[in-house]
Amino acid sequence: MNCNVPTDIVFSFTGFSTRGGQTDTHHDGWGIAFFEGAGVRHFVDHEAAVSSPVADLIKRWPIKSKNVIAHIRKATQGRVALENCHPFVRELWGRYWVFAHNGDLKDFFPQLEGPFRPVGSTDSERAFCYLLQELGRRFGSTQPGLPALRDALRELSNHIAGFGTFNMMLSDGSALFVHCSTSLYYIVRQHPFATAKLADEDLSVDFSEVTTPKDRVAVIVTAPLTCNEHWTPFAQGELQVFVDGAPLPA
Amino acid sequence: MNCNVPTDIVFSFTGFSTRGGQTDTHHDGWGIAFFEGAGVRHFVDHEAAVSSPVADLIKRWPIKSKNVIAHIRKATQGRVALENCHPFVRELWGRYWVFAHNGDLKDFFPQLEGPFRPVGSTDSERAFCYLLQELGRRFGSTQPGLPALRDALRELSNHIAGFGTFNMMLSDGSALFVHCSTSLYYIVRQHPFATAKLADEDLSVDFSEVTTPKDRVAVIVTAPLTCNEHWTPFAQGELQVFVDGAPLPA
Repeated sequence: MNCNVPTDIVFSFTGFSTRGGQTDTHHDGWGIAFFEGAGVRHFVDHEAAVSSPVADLIKRWPIKSKNVIAHIRKATQGRVALENCHPFVRELWGRYWVFAHNGDLKDFFPQLEGPFRPVGSTDSERAFCYLLQELGRRFGSTQPGLPALRDALRELSNHIAGFGTFNMMLSDGSALFVHCSTSLYYIVRQHPFATAKLADEDLSVDFSEVTTPKDRVAVIVTAPLTCNEHWTPFAQGELQVFVDGAPLPA
Repeated sequence: MNCNVPTDIVFSFTGFSTRGGQTDTHHDGWGIAFFEGAGVRHFVDHEAAVSSPVADLIKRWPIKSKNVIAHIRKATQGRVALENCHPFVRELWGRYWVFAHNGDLKDFFPQLEGPFRPVGSTDSERAFCYLLQELGRRFGSTQPGLPALRDALRELSNHIAGFGTFNMMLSDGSALFVHCSTSLYYIVRQHPFATAKLADEDLSVDFSEVTTPKDRVAVIVTAPLTCNEHWTPFAQGELQVFVDGAPLPA
């Protein structure tokens, strides 16, 4: 989720976490990270989201954030363990970066000899370390502007996607970078707001009651969360940047 | 807390978190990190621990860990914000490192041009980044053995303590490094276990009922948590390493 004002994710997370072991088979752990200014609240658990006490807390506690990344895991590489749960967090350029991956990379073992080394044993964390290592190499000690960052991430993501499925999300708390390898959708909710109905649970929310006309919220997912809204599919190989609740113009 | 078997910290955290705004003035945020294997559960909040929904969860949820670092904050440098809450987490040598600091460092602005840059604005995070940067410089890409690491951390901590108070804890999930600048105490609980009574709340626990004879748990604190046990004070300038619930022999 990427927004122009701090927004809670209780509605979307309720539908999403149901897929972690109940309406879907992603039951090998889960995680969520909320940016709050430069800080991050990071929750991971190797239990299924549907039965996790932390997931229960998050469903009841409206943490407000402009950038949130959540993930439910189906283990492909790396055992079911806390260190293998997404999202992953690292620091680069004095900012925290949060990353989650959907997919499976075959034989992806990049040289990681710099400051970013995987702690767990997933292809996903290797890809994250590789992205940050290469960004550091290209841009040195100072974070570049968004267009340069987008171009670099597009090129690096295309390279990684050569090893397998690489649907990914990455954020530094100011922008949300999304790469689609096979399947991702997004929606931008803005004035006039309507009622949305979850696909996975019997729950609706009238967003006009909980928003102001200036609010704008983009939600990006692997499969649409609601059954009565139009979700836009990404093209295969597309990399998009979301800022203040909308895709950045090309 | 450092233990030889995964142990929950519910009892200690109950007394500890009461100091975060109720029996003490450390009300500018709090945090706790639990190692679970190589992974870390990291909770931070800029609200007072005594009224935080996450602190409430942790008081009720017996997360078991061999290494836990918790912190309640009284802001000296850096505003009350999530990115300034301890403990801080960074990765070095493919392991997560967790750090918390009690004290105040004056004019401590080391050159941090390498891979560890502060996200927030505290003296504490600068000290943490400095420690990891210098460890990386000394030992290169491979983590050294405990004695070498202890010697290096002793020297680096003494240097930092030249700028002010530097009571700190640091862990990579296998050992807990503790430096005392002004005030720290520890206790090793082992067989035969007895009953302990919290100093800050009317709560006791008979550890013999919740342990096995092989269990050993070291708890290190800035001020003793219980009123009926003997806590050993650290010497000023002392750096100690705890492994499997006991101090490492010199």
